[in-house]
Parts: sequence; structure tokens; C-alpha cells
Amino acid sequence: MDKPGLRERKKEATRRRISDIATGLFALRGFDNVTVAEVAEAAEVSKMTVFNYFPRKEDLFWDRQTDRLTTLEAAVRERAPGESVPAALRRYHHELLTSGHPLSGVVENIYWFMKIVRASPALMTRALEFDHEIEETLVRVLADEVTDDVRARLIAGQLAAAMGSIYSIAIDRMLEVGDVEQVRREQVEVIDTAFDLLENGMGAYGS
Amino acid sequence: MDKPGLRERKKEATRRRISDIATGLFALRGFDNVTVAEVAEAAEVSKMTVFNYFPRKEDLFWDRQTDRLTTLEAAVRERAPGESVPAALRRYHHELLTSGHPLSGVVENIYWFMKIVRASPALMTRALEFDHEIEETLVRVLADEVTDDVRARLIAGQLAAAMGSIYSIAIDRMLEVGDVEQVRREQVEVIDTAFDLLENGMGAYGS
Repeated sequence: MDKPGLRERKKEATRRRISDIATGLFALRGFDNVTVAEVAEAAEVSKMTVFNYFPRKEDLFWDRQTDRLTTLEAAVRERAPGESVPAALRRYHHELLTSGHPLSGVVENIYWFMKIVRASPALMTRALEFDHEIEETLVRVLADEVTDDVRARLIAGQLAAAMGSIYSIAIDRMLEVGDVEQVRREQVEVIDTAFDLLENGMGAYGS
Repeated sequence: MDKPGLRERKKEATRRRISDIATGLFALRGFDNVTVAEVAEAAEVSKMTVFNYFPRKEDLFWDRQTDRLTTLEAAVRERAPGESVPAALRRYHHELLTSGHPLSGVVENIYWFMKIVRASPALMTRALEFDHEIEETLVRVLADEVTDDVRARLIAGQLAAAMGSIYSIAIDRMLEVGDVEQVRREQVEVIDTAFDLLENGMGAYGS
């Protein structure tokens, strides 16, 4: 990708500021008790500006999830020649983890983040929809490459499920253990177990 | 399982009748425009009776999904000695299909069924939650059998994703083709492709 210009960087900064301020308000008073108008006021922008960046109120909170769809698609489409899809996504997950990206799930403030989510049915629902969107993104990207739609769709479903499991295992361990360094070390193995399973199969598991 | 007694069969018949009448009303007027009180009146039972059978209004429509969790759990827990988990679930899916069970997705009235679903955000959300509950059921069942929780959880996620894909491919093909016999024949291969993939892995897919 090209390096973003000044205009794009300013837009991205405004976007991040609105989302950060919104998240602060949600943490303070609960997602359902904060209006978009209050977010706009606190961020000193118009309500319309907030809507331009975030068409749905839930997206103010799940801001990073849009990044997930974009970076995920790029990781598959722009993989090295000869690199397989699971290999590219394995690498993508290791990179999220080592760079301390929030999408790895291994971040300090996850307790507060999950507290906001679990108190709001609207945010819980949006989380389920995001899982579905990850799958749809992968279906679309993989279907572009091949003619066997059924197989591409099944594989996209498997990859999306692995991504969901890796993330939720990270969250659960963070809530249990609370130590970023420890969970980050553990997650290296979780990612490799997940992708080994995708590549090699579960065989006669449980027999 | 023991054969159900007279009392259980009567309860099951009442339950089915309430759900069928509700589904008829939803088809006629849309899910969001029908109240539980109206369902109770049409089925000639009290509102409390409806709530006893169906704690949430959405469950009146997604009635069969509760069966899915129960039969799925039984298929894994009561598998033959030496039979693997993917083998048991492959068999379970072939049985749903050949018996013409609504949970196979291959049924005549799927067009009307999906029309009701797609018109109602509440039903769409409940469908996403059911996918999540399938995964949670499998996580619980598999975790009971082994000590390696991470691996059991990843495998449960893979199996749940395959179930979701098999079902949604069936629905899409029914909406495209409309012919039960044709889609039933196709689904035999979809099920086998899905479970071959689970057992043998995707290898270096896309390299």
C-alpha cells in the first residue's frame, strides 16, 4: 500500500480521537446510556461527522474490527508468491501478537473492554456479526481465486473459526491470568496449534 | 434414549402445535408484527404456557434449533466405541439429510422460512447466537473427554464452522435451485467434502 498522505492521516487521527472519546464515555456510563450526540459534543465535532466515520453507534466501540476485515483481506490477497493461505494467516496472527495489536486480544485494558461488551446486548450482537463478516470476507477473497466454490466456502469457514477461537482464547486467558507477557507467550503456541490443525486436520479425533 | 411416555408425547405435540401456529402467523404478518399474546390466543393456550415452552419469542420460530443442540450432543456423546468425533458427526449429517429433517436445510418451504428470517433483525441475531451455541455445546462436550482444553476448543470451533457451512450451503442451493431431490444429492458430497477437510486438513491451500 502507498503511504497515506497528510489528508488521510488527519482523517485517521480524527476518527481515532472520536472512537477513543466514545470508548471512554462507554466505560464510564455503559454503552447503552451514551448517545451519539454526547460523543459528538465531547469530541467537539458535529453529530454528522460522527456518523460519517461510524455509520452505526456500535462501530464507535468496535472500531478496530473494521481494521480486521481490511488487514485480513490484505494478508490473503498480498501473500508472497507460492505462500499458502493458512501460512499467510498464521504469519498475520503472529504479527498481530508480537506487535501488541489490540486485535490479538492480548492487551492490558481487556478487562474494561469486555466489561463494557458484556453489559450491552447491542455490542454482543455486533460481535457475533463481526465473526460472520470475517467469514464472508474470506469467502469472497477465496472465491475470487478458484472455481470450486463449495471447497472455498468450507475452507473460509474453517479459517474464520480458527481466528475466532484464537481471539477468544486470548481474551479468556487475559481475564484469568491478567499478565500480558505470560498470555503473549502462551498465544504463540495457540496460534501454531490452530494452524497445524487447519493444515493437517483432526484425523480420527476422539476415537 | 428411552421411548418417551404418553405425557412427554402430549407435551411435545402441544409444543409443536404452538410453534407451527406461531410460524404461520409470522409468515402471514412478519415476525415483528405478531405478539406472544396473539400466538397464545390462536393456539388456544395461555400466554404463560407459551412462555413455559418458549422463554423467548424468537424460539417460537427457531424451534428446531433446540433439537439441534440436543441431537448434536447425543451424536457425539453416544458415538460407537472407537468411532471418532468427526466420523460421528459426518454420520449425523448424512442421517439428517436422508431422513429429510428440517435441520438439513433441504426442505420444500425454505423460501418462506428464509423470507421471514431476513425480514426480522431479531431472528437474524438469534440465528447468529445459535451458531455460537453450537460451538459452545461442542466445546463443553469435547472438554469433558480430554485434558487439552485449547485443542478441544479449537476442534470444537472447526466442527461448528463446518456444520454452519453445510447448513448455509444447503439453504443457498435450495433458494437458487428449489429442487429438494437435486439439492439432497448435492449435499451428500458437500457433507463429505466438509468432513474430509476436517479430517485431512487444508494443507498448503492456495499456494
